[in-house]
Amino acid sequence: MKLVRFEGWRVGVTDGRKIVDLSALCGASADEWPPVAINRLIRDFEALRPRIAALIASAPGIPFEGTRLETPVPWPNKLIAYPVNYHDHATEMASKGLANIQGFFLKANSSLSGPHDPIELPALPGRQIHHECEIGLVIGKQGREIPPEKALEHVFGYCCLLDITVRGKEERVMRKSYETFTPIGPWIVTADELPDPGNVDMRLWVNDELRQQANTRDLIVDIPQMIAIASSATTLYPGDIFATGTPAGVGPIVDGDVVTIDIAGVGRMSVPVVQGARGHNIVFAKPYDFQKMPV
Amino acid sequence: MKLVRFEGWRVGVTDGRKIVDLSALCGASADEWPPVAINRLIRDFEALRPRIAALIASAPGIPFEGTRLETPVPWPNKLIAYPVNYHDHATEMASKGLANIQGFFLKANSSLSGPHDPIELPALPGRQIHHECEIGLVIGKQGREIPPEKALEHVFGYCCLLDITVRGKEERVMRKSYETFTPIGPWIVTADELPDPGNVDMRLWVNDELRQQANTRDLIVDIPQMIAIASSATTLYPGDIFATGTPAGVGPIVDGDVVTIDIAGVGRMSVPVVQGARGHNIVFAKPYDFQKMPV
Repeated sequence: MKLVRFEGWRVGVTDGRKIVDLSALCGASADEWPPVAINRLIRDFEALRPRIAALIASAPGIPFEGTRLETPVPWPNKLIAYPVNYHDHATEMASKGLANIQGFFLKANSSLSGPHDPIELPALPGRQIHHECEIGLVIGKQGREIPPEKALEHVFGYCCLLDITVRGKEERVMRKSYETFTPIGPWIVTADELPDPGNVDMRLWVNDELRQQANTRDLIVDIPQMIAIASSATTLYPGDIFATGTPAGVGPIVDGDVVTIDIAGVGRMSVPVVQGARGHNIVFAKPYDFQKMPV
Repeated sequence: MKLVRFEGWRVGVTDGRKIVDLSALCGASADEWPPVAINRLIRDFEALRPRIAALIASAPGIPFEGTRLETPVPWPNKLIAYPVNYHDHATEMASKGLANIQGFFLKANSSLSGPHDPIELPALPGRQIHHECEIGLVIGKQGREIPPEKALEHVFGYCCLLDITVRGKEERVMRKSYETFTPIGPWIVTADELPDPGNVDMRLWVNDELRQQANTRDLIVDIPQMIAIASSATTLYPGDIFATGTPAGVGPIVDGDVVTIDIAGVGRMSVPVVQGARGHNIVFAKPYDFQKMPV
């Protein structure tokens, strides 16, 4: 099944043709703040699955086409990211043997955006802002110290995820946490529909140009091990999101571009890029040597 | 006024002698998950202030002494941290001129713990785990692109904050995000009680030994500028927490220690340290066994 948030605050399930509203089922409402109803739905999903399956089979719903989609989980406990995590990107970034086994970092929850939200480039003249194509993973079952062999039991589902990045040598977390820098969508597909997350093709285009193409079998730290590492330090909660790392081919995006990501068995979304006027701060207000630009 | 969470899930206000329960006022309950009622109370606090002031003046409450306190805001949108942010610590860490203007990073929300929760040291033989003494700051009013001169208007209050850190070269976010690595307490004191956060004394002891002593006037990036930088990239939400950086004197803590932090005008808390059995992962398994690494 495919979970969505739509029309601002609503939570629903879709088959790609219609959306059935589950807001009442999980307590989502227009004035709910913070918006955490979908975290509860994810936590309780297995118990609710028969009821939800019946609804998607019989309820009339609203048309999927033309409905505004929002970011699926806007307020997780955490948005975990793994650095340079594909062998080819490691080579590309000249960081082979360094970044592949250093653990995880975090992106701000407030960087999450949806498939219909443009990526807003911050006003940082002279800076490159790059697309990174990733498969996103959403935790379903709470856990700590999860061994790799049990890790997939804790996965609720998968999604397309763009990890947008200002290149530079300032704090990476800041450079990756700008608002709209983590577009996710178009939905979360439940894990039963992707039986082998270790063998998934993904592609990314900027406009008509294919920029990234990879398969999750080339991950340096695979999905079960990513869950094991993160849960060795933290409790993973339903709704927690993993950005699993990007393969080779990262490159700049500019005003007017459209970034399309397609993950086999998961989904596809196209996100426009716009130049914003915000985002400068004193950290960027200094001379900068582009030749020395690291990952 | 001083805001607390207590007895597992309750939200209250205290004068240090009694606690008045505000759970019903903000919708906190035993089965609320995720626990975000206090985020709403912080958002709505100014409107509720007269009512809360009347309650603390007249309601009998329960004794503060002997009541179990929890971490005040367990599920913020984000827990922002500023690296090496005091002139003396910058010298100490041999990172002068590097770390002072690089921006912010994040710690996991799930690292937050309360004044009555022990710090659980992960089982990482040979690794030093350090205390860092910091003043914590909690956002009250949502904002983006907040200029420094308006930044303090967005502050809800302040708290004692310990930033516990595994020293090493792996991802810093991971090394700082272990569970119980961000003890906060004993309460959040509202900003009106700390009119000049730019001149606040703070001290930290391990057992009876004074280890850190500083004043916020020695911050490299001051509090208004920290808010300006973070809000240039992200929307700050009510309940967002800042770990503002630590002065010189960081050092190891071990099983059986008690860490005491005292911030003038804010509060004081003593947190025990215990050695745990959890927390190891392949990142720390040096030398790396590449036979066991996924390919």
